[in-house]
Amino acid sequence: MVGAKLPQPASAEVRLEELGIKLSAAPTPFGNYVEVAQAGNLLFLTGMLPVVDHKPKYLGRLGKELDTEAGQDAARTAALSALAAIKEYLGSLDRVVKIVRIGVFMATQGVLVDQPKVADGASDLFASVFGTRGIAPRLVIGVASLPLEVPIELEVIVEFAD
Amino acid sequence: MVGAKLPQPASAEVRLEELGIKLSAAPTPFGNYVEVAQAGNLLFLTGMLPVVDHKPKYLGRLGKELDTEAGQDAARTAALSALAAIKEYLGSLDRVVKIVRIGVFMATQGVLVDQPKVADGASDLFASVFGTRGIAPRLVIGVASLPLEVPIELEVIVEFAD
Amino acid sequence: MVGAKLPQPASAEVRLEELGIKLSAAPTPFGNYVEVAQAGNLLFLTGMLPVVDHKPKYLGRLGKELDTEAGQDAARTAALSALAAIKEYLGSLDRVVKIVRIGVFMATQGVLVDQPKVADGASDLFASVFGTRGIAPRLVIGVASLPLEVPIELEVIVEFAD
Repeated sequence: MVGAKLPQPASAEVRLEELGIKLSAAPTPFGNYVEVAQAGNLLFLTGMLPVVDHKPKYLGRLGKELDTEAGQDAARTAALSALAAIKEYLGSLDRVVKIVRIGVFMATQGVLVDQPKVADGASDLFASVFGTRGIAPRLVIGVASLPLEVPIELEVIVEFAD
Repeated sequence: MVGAKLPQPASAEVRLEELGIKLSAAPTPFGNYVEVAQAGNLLFLTGMLPVVDHKPKYLGRLGKELDTEAGQDAARTAALSALAAIKEYLGSLDRVVKIVRIGVFMATQGVLVDQPKVADGASDLFASVFGTRGIAPRLVIGVASLPLEVPIELEVIVEFAD
Repeated sequence: MVGAKLPQPASAEVRLEELGIKLSAAPTPFGNYVEVAQAGNLLFLTGMLPVVDHKPKYLGRLGKELDTEAGQDAARTAALSALAAIKEYLGSLDRVVKIVRIGVFMATQGVLVDQPKVADGASDLFASVFGTRGIAPRLVIGVASLPLEVPIELEVIVEFAD
C-alpha cells in the first residue's frame, strides 16, 4: 500500500505551496445545485469535472478520443477543482481530517483503458496534499457519458474538523 | 446560483399542498432490499426510479427512445418517489433538514442529451418543496442501462431532525 | 419485503460458520487507495470486485460473455470480499450495526439482464449473514465497463458499534 510509506504533511496548505500548486477559483454550478453540502462533520461534493474557469479542459471518451495519460490528467484536474471547492467551503484545507471516499466515473468506449491508473490521477494528488489522510477508498466505474462530454467525473466525501 | 434567490418555505408539507402535489404511495422493492436506511441523522435511499404504482412511467434511453423533456419528467417522477419514501419513513417531510446529495444516473445512447437539464428535473422539485435546503450537490452520470429499462435512477441522501 | 420475515442472527460470526462460509483474506488495492475508511460510526468501502486472491473470478459483461447466474455469483463474490474487508477493519463482523447502503454496478452490453436479480446476489448474502440488519437500500446501475474487465463492482457503506 503506497499510502503507508507517505510522509504526513503537517499542513495541507503549506504542502500545496511546496508542490507549486495554486488553486483556481472554486467551480460554479451548471444547473440547479450547489457544489458542497455539509452533514455533521462530512462534506458531500458535487461530481467534480475536469473544468477550468467553467470550461472543460478535456472532451471525449477514454479509449477513443483520449488516452490513459489524458484521463489521468483529467482526474487530477477534477481533484484540483475538489480542493478549490473544499477550500472555499472550509476556509482552509487544514481543516480536512481525511478524504472519506472518492468515486472516479470515466466515460469509456471501445479500446480498454487502465482504469485504476486513470483513477490514480485523482488519488495521487490527494495523497500528495494530505498524506495518508488523503488516501481514500474509491469507486472506479466506466460509464457511457458524462455532462458536457467530459471524460471524468469525481465524487468526493470529506471529513472535516470544526 | 439559483438557490440563493429562493424563498425558504416554513413547511415542506404546506408547500407540497400549495404546489398541488399529492404524493403516491411510497415505492416498494423489486428485490431483496429496503427503500430507506438510517445512520445517525442521515437517511440513505434506494435508487429511486420513475415508477408509479410499481410500474415504470418511462421506458427507454435518453437520446434514443426518449428526449430531454421526457428525461426531465422522469427525474421529477423519481424525485416524487423519493419524497414519498422519505415521508413514509419520517412521518412528515417537515423533519427534513436538507437534501445532502443526489445522484442522477441516466441511461443514454447515441444522440447527446443535455444532462444537467435532465438532472434539474429532480433538483427543481426538491428546491420548490424545500427551498434552499433542497438544493444539493449532485452526481450526474450517463450509464449503459438501468433496472426495468427505465431512463433514470435517482440517488438521495437526506439529513433529518429528531 | 423479504427482510421482514428473516430471523435475526445473534452473531454474524456464528452465522457465517453455520453457513459454512470461510472468508478469504481481505482484498488488497490495485492502485493508490485503501479498502476501508471510517467517518464517525460509518465505514466507506472501496468498490468491491469479484476477486479471489487478487485475481478476478469473472471477466466480461453481463448479457454478453456472462449470464444472469454468473452475475449473481459475481455479486455474491464481491459481497464476500466486502465481509473480509469489514472483518479485517473491525476485528469482528459482530460490530456491524447495519449495512447502510449498497451500490451494485454491473457491466452490461447487448442483451438485457435481470438487474435486480443480479444485485440480489449481494443483498441475499448480507441478509443471510446479518438478518434484517443486512438488508439495505441499494443503487443498481448498468455501466459500460469496470476495472480489470470484471462484471460487478459493489459499493458498501456500513454502520458499526464501538
